[in-house]
Amino acid sequence: MSELRWHPLLGQWVINATHRQNRTYKPPADQCPLCPTPSGTPPEAVTEIPVPDFEIAVFQNRFPSLQPAPPAPDVEGTAFYPVRPASGVCEVVVYTADHQGDLGTVGLDRVRNLVEVWADRYRELSALPYVEYVFIFENRGEAVGVTLHHPHGQIYAYPFLPPLMEKELEQCTKHWQDTGRCLGCDILTMEKEGGRVLHSDGSFLTFVPFFARFPFETHIWPLRHVAYLPELTDGERWSLARALQQLVQTYDRLFAKPMPYMMAMHQRPAKREEVGGLYHMHIEFLPLARTATKLKYLAGSESGAGAFITDMSPEFQAENLRAAAAGTPAAAASATAAGSGVSR
Amino acid sequence: MSELRWHPLLGQWVINATHRQNRTYKPPADQCPLCPTPSGTPPEAVTEIPVPDFEIAVFQNRFPSLQPAPPAPDVEGTAFYPVRPASGVCEVVVYTADHQGDLGTVGLDRVRNLVEVWADRYRELSALPYVEYVFIFENRGEAVGVTLHHPHGQIYAYPFLPPLMEKELEQCTKHWQDTGRCLGCDILTMEKEGGRVLHSDGSFLTFVPFFARFPFETHIWPLRHVAYLPELTDGERWSLARALQQLVQTYDRLFAKPMPYMMAMHQRPAKREEVGGLYHMHIEFLPLARTATKLKYLAGSESGAGAFITDMSPEFQAENLRAAAAGTPAAAASATAAGSGVSR
Repeated sequence: MSELRWHPLLGQWVINATHRQNRTYKPPADQCPLCPTPSGTPPEAVTEIPVPDFEIAVFQNRFPSLQPAPPAPDVEGTAFYPVRPASGVCEVVVYTADHQGDLGTVGLDRVRNLVEVWADRYRELSALPYVEYVFIFENRGEAVGVTLHHPHGQIYAYPFLPPLMEKELEQCTKHWQDTGRCLGCDILTMEKEGGRVLHSDGSFLTFVPFFARFPFETHIWPLRHVAYLPELTDGERWSLARALQQLVQTYDRLFAKPMPYMMAMHQRPAKREEVGGLYHMHIEFLPLARTATKLKYLAGSESGAGAFITDMSPEFQAENLRAAAAGTPAAAASATAAGSGVSR
Repeated sequence: MSELRWHPLLGQWVINATHRQNRTYKPPADQCPLCPTPSGTPPEAVTEIPVPDFEIAVFQNRFPSLQPAPPAPDVEGTAFYPVRPASGVCEVVVYTADHQGDLGTVGLDRVRNLVEVWADRYRELSALPYVEYVFIFENRGEAVGVTLHHPHGQIYAYPFLPPLMEKELEQCTKHWQDTGRCLGCDILTMEKEGGRVLHSDGSFLTFVPFFARFPFETHIWPLRHVAYLPELTDGERWSLARALQQLVQTYDRLFAKPMPYMMAMHQRPAKREEVGGLYHMHIEFLPLARTATKLKYLAGSESGAGAFITDMSPEFQAENLRAAAAGTPAAAASATAAGSGVSR
């Protein structure tokens, strides 16, 4: 069963995909479905990637929430409770043939290639008639629910504008109407001088935003007004690759262990050229670790009411990430227990 | 440090409360701050509740995100990045003096008293000049991030309308304008006949909604149009207490262990009498367990884009909860591995 049901109270589509309940769950490393298939492997042991080696692999998720040719919905919709087929595409982007690694360690050339792959997939998926939004993301760490440890990200091509992107577009449109300016460009003006910058090379800015909702939440934005990945120049793509690599390295130094996070790429909706002027692409990293041993939970206030609470000021978060980036990991790791900004 | 910062991209307030980072974290049972204080206890060992026994206790959270007289914000706001004091109230509602227990086991009379306490707190907190929304909720289980195991819930009196409630009110207003009817009343009409009802006694309806976003998500709604708790009659309050007790018992039978969940009480915003006619109060239970051993994670799609994916049809979820309620826990516990509705 696979269908979209309308949530009348929240005005959003809920994806129902029942065949996913039994998806691959933490397989042992020697049964990793994202590893390449050595030549001579018997047919029953072929992985999702039937070749002995690859650079970066993209394939359709075997347990997709959304499908190009979905089955007819299981229930009949009504005007009050509409139902739609779960059209769309769910892709897996495997970063490397190695079973180990991440954006911080796979090497700059590979991250640069990944940017190319993402831009390519954005272009191709956004052209599909049933796709309204292409969401490129990565879940990292068991705390985020990751069940396959081989380095990979995902792409969901939704047949609707997801709620957070809808809200964002609404806010950007309002700001455009009020001021004639792109909201993202104005955010960048503030953030350049905000004291929360982690890294900049003139093309991309990495910073903890003034309005961070997650612990150590960090954004990577192109300084030039760019609405989606394919618009980036070659130089900007290298700059983005460097920013991604540096940020993940910084995260992993902060607590001297891999930081669990969600990476969420925000681009203008598919086929919506008309909003290109008012929408500024960016990448959000949403970590889940508050300290080396404590996680942030999205509990009652966050999940039940949508109201986020943070335990550290964004300035304090930026200070600690800068210390980690500068290679003073010990200071950073103990910072939340001993440092400034946390009243005892 | 304690302040509200405006998130311009999502149009919402983020609560920054840095003194919370060091809040009480999983204390041993003999140091539980929610247990009563036996007489003769030395001053340094007095708990949050300085009396030897109590029925239900309500007190202000010692590590509050929101405070009646908050300190001045740490940073100066601007027109673009507004900042406000984190005004509000965070209360803890301790269900019983016993260290063990939950809504399913503390007894019907106690749950009935709890309804009275909630109605009373709603009335009092919603009258405060700086309060816009009174959110009564419970986080249950370590999977939800609970750090104190003594049975308790919480109340956040926000100085703004939380994002999910804002969206809900928008949808209810739209429906009212389109049809002249309350959206909640229309949902109830559909749900009464939807085949997903778990329990009803003529005053309250317990059901898995057509549009469930969480695994085994269940709603408890008054059948009569009621906008907030204080409007409930004595008979309805008993009915609500029974519904709450039954639902938690059912959850705990489903997998033969305590179900981790968030309980979220949705009532009309404080001091907004004018929306009473179009807003229907209800209680949402948002569980996090998909099976006896697997959790639902709010990962990339949910947290990064706001788009929810469920692994089981709401009809299948209701069927399993009914089986658990009927006392066939074995069937229910294995249902997600063997039952109908999950294609293999």
